[in-house]
Amino acid sequence: MTSTTPSVTAPVTVLGLGPMGRSLAEAFLAAGHPTTVWNRTAGRDRELLARGAHGAATAAEAVTASELVVICVLDNAAVEAVLAGPGVAEALAGRTVVNLSADTPARARQLAAWAAEHGVDYLDGAIMTPVTTIGTPDAVYLHSGPEELYRRHLPTLTALGPGHSYLGAEIGRAAAHDLALLDIFWSAMSGYAHALAVARAEGVTGRELAPFAQGIVAILPPIFEALAGDLDDGTFSGEDNPLTSAASSMAHVIEASESHGIDAGVMRAAEGLARRVIGLGHGEGGFIRTAELLNPRA
Amino acid sequence: MTSTTPSVTAPVTVLGLGPMGRSLAEAFLAAGHPTTVWNRTAGRDRELLARGAHGAATAAEAVTASELVVICVLDNAAVEAVLAGPGVAEALAGRTVVNLSADTPARARQLAAWAAEHGVDYLDGAIMTPVTTIGTPDAVYLHSGPEELYRRHLPTLTALGPGHSYLGAEIGRAAAHDLALLDIFWSAMSGYAHALAVARAEGVTGRELAPFAQGIVAILPPIFEALAGDLDDGTFSGEDNPLTSAASSMAHVIEASESHGIDAGVMRAAEGLARRVIGLGHGEGGFIRTAELLNPRA
Repeated sequence: MTSTTPSVTAPVTVLGLGPMGRSLAEAFLAAGHPTTVWNRTAGRDRELLARGAHGAATAAEAVTASELVVICVLDNAAVEAVLAGPGVAEALAGRTVVNLSADTPARARQLAAWAAEHGVDYLDGAIMTPVTTIGTPDAVYLHSGPEELYRRHLPTLTALGPGHSYLGAEIGRAAAHDLALLDIFWSAMSGYAHALAVARAEGVTGRELAPFAQGIVAILPPIFEALAGDLDDGTFSGEDNPLTSAASSMAHVIEASESHGIDAGVMRAAEGLARRVIGLGHGEGGFIRTAELLNPRA
Repeated sequence: MTSTTPSVTAPVTVLGLGPMGRSLAEAFLAAGHPTTVWNRTAGRDRELLARGAHGAATAAEAVTASELVVICVLDNAAVEAVLAGPGVAEALAGRTVVNLSADTPARARQLAAWAAEHGVDYLDGAIMTPVTTIGTPDAVYLHSGPEELYRRHLPTLTALGPGHSYLGAEIGRAAAHDLALLDIFWSAMSGYAHALAVARAEGVTGRELAPFAQGIVAILPPIFEALAGDLDDGTFSGEDNPLTSAASSMAHVIEASESHGIDAGVMRAAEGLARRVIGLGHGEGGFIRTAELLNPRA
């Protein structure tokens, strides 16, 4: 079965029908792929069946319908629970699993090992954009694993949108990128939630702050690019923005927050790192030296 | 003196010649304003003098040269130290101080009280963009204080770039916005530094991660807008992204980080907030409910 080149309307099976799984299935259906769906708890497939999806009584039955099986559940523990279901491993032998559930690189490697043991082809992936982007040009997907496998199924995966990036054969790379990006996303979101709380204490509404907040994230991309190069090269110039100045800003945020009785634990942790680097004698250096403190180069 | 309407080339005095202060002075000079400069420690004005700036031996002398005095030093404690210098308060009486130093709303109010006592007109401001943007269309400045004062000096301030926003008469509003935006900025930067550290432990370089990191911040603006409205309205729908899912992502980041011996204190603090809101029974709600936990509405 691995020698088949799927047509643009190759059959596909989607396991897991949470908001993300349902959107994935809808996108496959919209692109004309015969789509078989299954969810651990019943009833989640109603709308999809009305749109022409095939239902399945068991995961093993769903898997048998397609060479390509896309799974998107809470995490890899949930993936493992599905794969351990009656007859699933046997039914998957010779087919391809694309796992779009989020988890750590270590757990992606565990699953790849399980797949190899059971004669299952395995690609690990990550969805980097919200549910509403699925099937649109705004959706971003990351993949890692055997390149041939990725190329073979890309025509089908393109039903989910054109934004697929292949990150390499090492199976953990998609999850590594995913985690790093979630790290940035949830740190920024935590900062935003805290900023809204402090702003409200100062009489500034969310809607007043939002346009400026959008402006401040717009200055990040060129800074991110410059700092990535600095870290890779081990150069930590703080020329126009020394670490002492960053720490001073953080201290102001903490002081204003706590003066209103608002917990500033996230910023306290961030300031603590900056102060440790300053304590090591690098106060005139750049902020990105904190990454070096967290993970010193070998 | 307050009745004078400055021409487009009104004289201006810049106190504080750090990287930011020097750039401000350069922008005033470039726009043709007679510019007087002063710095607490000598020698920082050399390049500016070569470009036509007027030097001053003391802060009091510098202040006497212009109706408009722009000050940009480390923080408001440093501002107060300058204003407490010999003869400075007397020289400032009847003139306008625009304070572009960063500090808390409470300290802006302190300075405004000092200014009122000494017959000094006072505007509080904040610079939201890097040094390199000063004098360009990319520069963003926030102001609060008496609106008439702001309107009167806006023609001169426009030499610094066109991006000035007036946030209201309450003197603390510029600092409140500034702090909220620094909160977002440094939270995002801390997340990025941590992400680069974890990525490197997984064999992903900064330059490999950077384009995806830029992509992830590009999805923030519409999310910020929606969440600001949610918080203002007290609606916390977690429809496509419940808090449990956010906490699960954060836990993955922490686990992967600590598996490499990399401190995850910032994300631990963020996850702690999310878990507390989940513990209050709002696991199906949206992430922005963490802002409500931090600062419950009255």
